[in-house]
Amino acid sequence: MLKLTGIAASSGVAIAKAFVHEEPDMTIELKEVQDPASEVQRLDQALAKSKEELSVIKDKTEKELGPDKAEIFAAHLLVLSDPELVDTVKGKITDNKQNAEYAMNEVSTMFITMFENMDNEYMKERAADIRDVSKRVLGHLLGIEAQSLATISEETIVIAEDLTPSDTAQLNPVFIKGFATDIGGRTSHSAIMSRSLEIPAVVGAKEVTAKIQTGMTVIVDGLDGLVIVEPTDEEIATYTKKRDDFAKQKAEWAKLVSEQTTTKDGKHVELAANIGTPKDLEGVINNGAEGIGLYRTEFLYMGRTELPSEEEQFEAYKEVVERMEGKPVVIRTLDIGGDKELPYLDLPKEMNPFLGFRAIRLCLEEKEIFRTQLRALLRASAFGNLKVMFPMIATLDEFRQAKAMLLEEKSKLVEAGVTVSEEMEIGMMVEIPSTAVAADLFAKEVDFFSIGTNDLIQYTMAADRMNERVSYLYQPYHPAILRLVKMVVDAAHKQGKWAGMCGEMAGDEVAIPLLLGLGLDEFSMSATSILPARSQLLSLSKEELAAFSNEMLHLDTADEVEQRVRETFMTE
Amino acid sequence: MLKLTGIAASSGVAIAKAFVHEEPDMTIELKEVQDPASEVQRLDQALAKSKEELSVIKDKTEKELGPDKAEIFAAHLLVLSDPELVDTVKGKITDNKQNAEYAMNEVSTMFITMFENMDNEYMKERAADIRDVSKRVLGHLLGIEAQSLATISEETIVIAEDLTPSDTAQLNPVFIKGFATDIGGRTSHSAIMSRSLEIPAVVGAKEVTAKIQTGMTVIVDGLDGLVIVEPTDEEIATYTKKRDDFAKQKAEWAKLVSEQTTTKDGKHVELAANIGTPKDLEGVINNGAEGIGLYRTEFLYMGRTELPSEEEQFEAYKEVVERMEGKPVVIRTLDIGGDKELPYLDLPKEMNPFLGFRAIRLCLEEKEIFRTQLRALLRASAFGNLKVMFPMIATLDEFRQAKAMLLEEKSKLVEAGVTVSEEMEIGMMVEIPSTAVAADLFAKEVDFFSIGTNDLIQYTMAADRMNERVSYLYQPYHPAILRLVKMVVDAAHKQGKWAGMCGEMAGDEVAIPLLLGLGLDEFSMSATSILPARSQLLSLSKEELAAFSNEMLHLDTADEVEQRVRETFMTE
Repeated sequence: MLKLTGIAASSGVAIAKAFVHEEPDMTIELKEVQDPASEVQRLDQALAKSKEELSVIKDKTEKELGPDKAEIFAAHLLVLSDPELVDTVKGKITDNKQNAEYAMNEVSTMFITMFENMDNEYMKERAADIRDVSKRVLGHLLGIEAQSLATISEETIVIAEDLTPSDTAQLNPVFIKGFATDIGGRTSHSAIMSRSLEIPAVVGAKEVTAKIQTGMTVIVDGLDGLVIVEPTDEEIATYTKKRDDFAKQKAEWAKLVSEQTTTKDGKHVELAANIGTPKDLEGVINNGAEGIGLYRTEFLYMGRTELPSEEEQFEAYKEVVERMEGKPVVIRTLDIGGDKELPYLDLPKEMNPFLGFRAIRLCLEEKEIFRTQLRALLRASAFGNLKVMFPMIATLDEFRQAKAMLLEEKSKLVEAGVTVSEEMEIGMMVEIPSTAVAADLFAKEVDFFSIGTNDLIQYTMAADRMNERVSYLYQPYHPAILRLVKMVVDAAHKQGKWAGMCGEMAGDEVAIPLLLGLGLDEFSMSATSILPARSQLLSLSKEELAAFSNEMLHLDTADEVEQRVRETFMTE
Repeated sequence: MLKLTGIAASSGVAIAKAFVHEEPDMTIELKEVQDPASEVQRLDQALAKSKEELSVIKDKTEKELGPDKAEIFAAHLLVLSDPELVDTVKGKITDNKQNAEYAMNEVSTMFITMFENMDNEYMKERAADIRDVSKRVLGHLLGIEAQSLATISEETIVIAEDLTPSDTAQLNPVFIKGFATDIGGRTSHSAIMSRSLEIPAVVGAKEVTAKIQTGMTVIVDGLDGLVIVEPTDEEIATYTKKRDDFAKQKAEWAKLVSEQTTTKDGKHVELAANIGTPKDLEGVINNGAEGIGLYRTEFLYMGRTELPSEEEQFEAYKEVVERMEGKPVVIRTLDIGGDKELPYLDLPKEMNPFLGFRAIRLCLEEKEIFRTQLRALLRASAFGNLKVMFPMIATLDEFRQAKAMLLEEKSKLVEAGVTVSEEMEIGMMVEIPSTAVAADLFAKEVDFFSIGTNDLIQYTMAADRMNERVSYLYQPYHPAILRLVKMVVDAAHKQGKWAGMCGEMAGDEVAIPLLLGLGLDEFSMSATSILPARSQLLSLSKEELAAFSNEMLHLDTADEVEQRVRETFMTE
């Protein structure tokens, strides 16, 4: 028996035989071709076959998982038709008499290196797309039958260095009971897919491909981030029970989908969902969210060559508020900056993009972009319960400026006879320490606060959460973070306003009792966390927790806080 | 009359005729040379002449301004002998038959571009060095007589796009009354030199070379960052008075050099200096500092090819504590990370180095580097009043780990019979918001706090102060910043500890009344700010200011705070 630890990427427990998904050997040699024209033809055939395959995968994904999950394959198809890539490869074949495999590999490696070095998450994803596509084309050129995950027809746990989008699209949840990978994090593509598919998964487990061989029995514990290789009978029994308990628990949670979130002592808190596009609404509704606590509007602006029009934005916002049928929908204005590439905006390369010119800072300067979004939001406000919130506010001046622009656009619309809501709330994210520390000053002028803990923790601890070497400092339970939350909640309540939270912390089972005790009104999280959070909140008493949470503010370290919460609420 | 605004780089007012320092025209053409050997010889001669000149400048600077100011010319001499540069140029002459000017320009431009793109302040300075040296060599090759600032022999204000180190080294304060440049900031080389030379200067004034011609009368107001071109008689009268008043004030300040810093109501506060190397001690002593509030040890580690030995560090620390003759010397342990290049440390390139693996985070992992420094500090502690402080502490765990390592090294030294101080205080920087918000937890375990406002403001406002597009958010008077200062001071006093400040804010005339009112015990600043700060503090009453400062915590914005301070304490 061997235990490997990794990152819990998708909840649940799976026990099955392992299937190690290996990368085929793609050794490529340079050969001088005599007949470049027929070599170009050979490339064209490989490209055509790849397109055919991708179209099939795309359609299948769209049907089974929805159009948003299929988008990545549309992107792959675009890569295959990209003249910059294809013509460069053909040039190398024609001018340098290189064989197609070699030319394809050279060119795609060049593009991959270029995109990967861009220090930019969006462009890095493009690099992953090119790698995935290029591997497919090379497979055809080399006549290598790609090991297909689609043909697996018995209960299996897939073990791989990493799973590409093409790989994960082939996973059939009927047979693929779980997977574990060497690399990746909670937000890597394979992790996100595993949660969509509800397949238990552990990623970043480092040595799984080295230690596991096809046919070995493996347990994947996606609850605690463990992979157990060749378990003992006792372990199989333990984990079988854990798996079944989790399944039972999920069934219990599912019953709560239409319930109110009311604590043991009868206090209502609002459980809302974070979304990125209207396509996420299905999951939101299926999981019984009482509202949208954060609608990130960045996706409307990304992966395109020009700004989205007012009309296009209006349609997107309208769709969300309408489908939420009067439930609150908090829409965050554009939060974009130097680390995201928008080809139509000339954003400066910055040394510290997380401390840079982004979000409201950019919007207050790029006034037309901002005003267009504000008009779209105002128009959509007539169709449901829309609330607007501004990101990255650091000073009261900024909030006042942003609000003034919103009210100006509103007056103009009203004057032009356009219907806009008269009750639309205007709030702000609390994600910069200055706003938490001075929350009382802001509370007088905002309608609500939404604490963005991902950034708030990052700035309060001065640690980039994307940087592995300092990620240990990303400590949601640090007494300083809890104190900032308290300052925000207290300041809001003193002015009769509400305070929510839309960072990852809001859905965290250790944080939930603390946040309830501190008086948080709204918890916004990924849709799949809502039912477990509701179940947990139903068992907690807000009043009892107030004293407990206040005591936690005075412990020395995050570890002590976590330990006390676990001891008090999670002993079984 | 025309008023141009820029950045006040060095205090004082100057009125004189302008001398516009122009870049000579260095148009370089590519020519094919027939006799590469003699072309190489021509290059060698130009290099030799440049070396000669630089040696003269270096010696003169060393004599007149001290060895630290001469170091840059030692670096320039190294560039001239760098085989990577010189051999590449010679290669282009010999192999490609290029003329020496062309080859030199090509190669140096390549190196400059490479270094400038490194997103790293240290390497960018190297780029500036190469540019300066290359210009000198090209001048000799092209037979262009460089316009010399050294020969100016009447009262003059120098106007330039920028001043290179070679240029500033030639400035004779007897005749050069002031200067103004198009580009540069408060920490650019020319700005630092202007303060050393005590020449009034305005940098970054954008249009000075475009608007000013040699011979025009110009006023440089280094107090308010103004350049006035062709002033009216009335303006000349006003600024002559301002100049004389400032001179009188400086003379008054000079009398305070041996005074205690005691407020009007008889409270003592400590005025200390920030230093980077033992060479800065002369200025510290001349300006009457009561101690060193921040000795940055990074310079010991920079611009070299291997780590400094324990012995070398010990000597540096010992020199400082001995020369301070029992006055307190707070030494900060290594604060280095991804944005500073240390060739002998393999530091990862980070996306957000200010939020990265640096300072104590690095030291707790690179234990041997840290322990070596700790031993050097402990040994030096026997020779004076040395206090140690740890940078970038975010959690109590980190402080405990660092302190434990210090105490371990202490025990080992004592066991080995080495004398170390038994009274050495162990403190920490408060520069990460979490430590200010939870200062009460830290106060139980530290001997003192030193608030590092440069970073604290940057993190609290989530704005990189080096990034011009968000530098407006660097707001020392933001109520949130003042509240954090109060939390730190109050927490320290409650445990009978002291709290100081070693950021730029400590020497700022608007901040000083606020900080005194909040109860700050020690103010550490650049040496040249000490006497004005002492003069200001002598006129303030700590008790009266307590209520005022507390009131300021509840104003809405930094602007309102500044306005109230100016109205209350700075009306004339």
